[in-house]
Amino acid sequence: MSSAELYINLANICSNWNALNRLSNGSAGAVVKANAYGLGIKEVGISLAKAGARDFFVAVAEEGMQLRQALGQGPKIYVFSGHMTGDTPLIKNFDLIPLINSAEQLLFHVENSSNQMIGIQLDTGMNRLGMECAEYEALKDIITQLNPELIMSHLACADETSNPMNERQLNYFNEITNNINCRKSLAATGGILLGKQYHFDMTRPGIGLYGGKPYSSSKNVVKLKLPVIQIRTVLAGETVGYSNTWTAKKTTKVATLNSGYADGIFRCMSNKAMLYYNEIPCSIIGRISMDLIGVDVSNCKEDPDSLWLLNDKQEIDDLAYDANSIGYEILTALGNRYNRIYI
Amino acid sequence: MSSAELYINLANICSNWNALNRLSNGSAGAVVKANAYGLGIKEVGISLAKAGARDFFVAVAEEGMQLRQALGQGPKIYVFSGHMTGDTPLIKNFDLIPLINSAEQLLFHVENSSNQMIGIQLDTGMNRLGMECAEYEALKDIITQLNPELIMSHLACADETSNPMNERQLNYFNEITNNINCRKSLAATGGILLGKQYHFDMTRPGIGLYGGKPYSSSKNVVKLKLPVIQIRTVLAGETVGYSNTWTAKKTTKVATLNSGYADGIFRCMSNKAMLYYNEIPCSIIGRISMDLIGVDVSNCKEDPDSLWLLNDKQEIDDLAYDANSIGYEILTALGNRYNRIYI
Repeated sequence: MSSAELYINLANICSNWNALNRLSNGSAGAVVKANAYGLGIKEVGISLAKAGARDFFVAVAEEGMQLRQALGQGPKIYVFSGHMTGDTPLIKNFDLIPLINSAEQLLFHVENSSNQMIGIQLDTGMNRLGMECAEYEALKDIITQLNPELIMSHLACADETSNPMNERQLNYFNEITNNINCRKSLAATGGILLGKQYHFDMTRPGIGLYGGKPYSSSKNVVKLKLPVIQIRTVLAGETVGYSNTWTAKKTTKVATLNSGYADGIFRCMSNKAMLYYNEIPCSIIGRISMDLIGVDVSNCKEDPDSLWLLNDKQEIDDLAYDANSIGYEILTALGNRYNRIYI
Repeated sequence: MSSAELYINLANICSNWNALNRLSNGSAGAVVKANAYGLGIKEVGISLAKAGARDFFVAVAEEGMQLRQALGQGPKIYVFSGHMTGDTPLIKNFDLIPLINSAEQLLFHVENSSNQMIGIQLDTGMNRLGMECAEYEALKDIITQLNPELIMSHLACADETSNPMNERQLNYFNEITNNINCRKSLAATGGILLGKQYHFDMTRPGIGLYGGKPYSSSKNVVKLKLPVIQIRTVLAGETVGYSNTWTAKKTTKVATLNSGYADGIFRCMSNKAMLYYNEIPCSIIGRISMDLIGVDVSNCKEDPDSLWLLNDKQEIDDLAYDANSIGYEILTALGNRYNRIYI
């Protein structure tokens, strides 16, 4: 096989969802935006629906369409970007619930799809997405009449448990939504861990489903095995890869692997990250190329025919450390050339 | 439209190929690996074949299959990873030419598909991919009998015109291939610019086709327009985005755009890169999220409904600078959610 193999453990995603659902005061939805964090919205969506998830969140209406086609009627599908120009047919035909982010979107929705349910997304301090609270106050009567399915906001610093921003956003959300009779949601994975007062009627776990921080009890979901194309011996003083950024200090056995930054293995991990052969860590040496990586396999007793970039010893957050990134970005960068194997 | 729009100028790709073909002593092939550097192997392959390209290079046999299906019979398709276990049916059924990288691959090829043409990839010092020269010398009689279609190697430092590694690799390649009567190739885009003595019978431009360095005369190929979801005013002291990494020094108009690192807009460009509204540069403020970016649009005279991340003012290498990366990686990271528009 010349393709690398990406193993995606759907059972562990469901197990993580079940655990986070049990932790939640109300019910847990499931965030499956960005192709379920790169892991396949169709496969992940169907598995989570079977596990009992009834509320799904996507970033854009096109993702909502894909998910509805996979799930059929029944589960609710919320769209974070709300109702944008051009979304109307998708919202109607695939029964999506736009999370309205502004007075403009509210007006646009009422004019174009007044029979479709809505949710309201409030900005409580992150200044990213959602209706400003003053705007919401001014529109409250209209919004109440529209009988929204959900009112929600998003925490900016939920991963930092002691950040006072969390309590500020919580208090603000409580204050503003005090008088409206509808389901409420504030917490994503980090917010679930902040405590029950952040949970309201529905939580929205995302990264915790896929094995990433800050939910430390989450089960690992992805493993990635890269095949070796060839192995060579380089002598002391010889260089490896583009621009000769690595020079052998002693005789070294170098494996060339069949994946590179075009597969989402960030180039900035050159000369930094490790791969694994059984228990043995093997360093990336030289620059990561578009389709190829050089790895020092001198410590392996036999010539490996493949190495693991992600496994139970090196999970997404471990690898993210070498890329100065976060587990989320490791997941969403996972490439299209991998042979994806669902478990 | 809620989707961002990625414009891919096929005419400029062909124009770049024509220019690099004219610069080449022999003929120019075309490197279309990694889905034509992220731009679409089918669309790019068909356009280049119409422009006159007859030799195509892909990274793995699966890409060769896709390309053959798009091009039909006729053009030659070379596979850099050579002949790996599992590739045999693809090589046979889609008439691919594996670039043999080792004695093991040569043996495997002869045992499994002895009627299929081969090329030979030599390692001349990069220590990445290709037969060691001593290995080649030992196998030369067998290789000569197999009548290879091409013998090639790859330069490690072609972008650094004064690096002595280039001449070392050139001399080594000349020396080793002196006695074999077959087409030869050493230069990718950087090598073409090093001069005629690097060109041999065929050059293999890649990045130069797609508008990237080091071919400074290349025409720009990609433009990327991101839609605005909403615009808000933030006051001095307010923060934007995850973990409050940006604080307003004065009243600021902030646009939230509908793309993020899940679309290949590297998170490390947070608080660094610019987008453009007409001629006006607008800074990314706060952390880039998975699906969203905050941008300071205070200097725009009217509220923009979209901003350009890539255009003729900010090409792939300009953006790569903000990501501490290279134009190649900007291209191959371009996301799946964009609405791709071919020109």
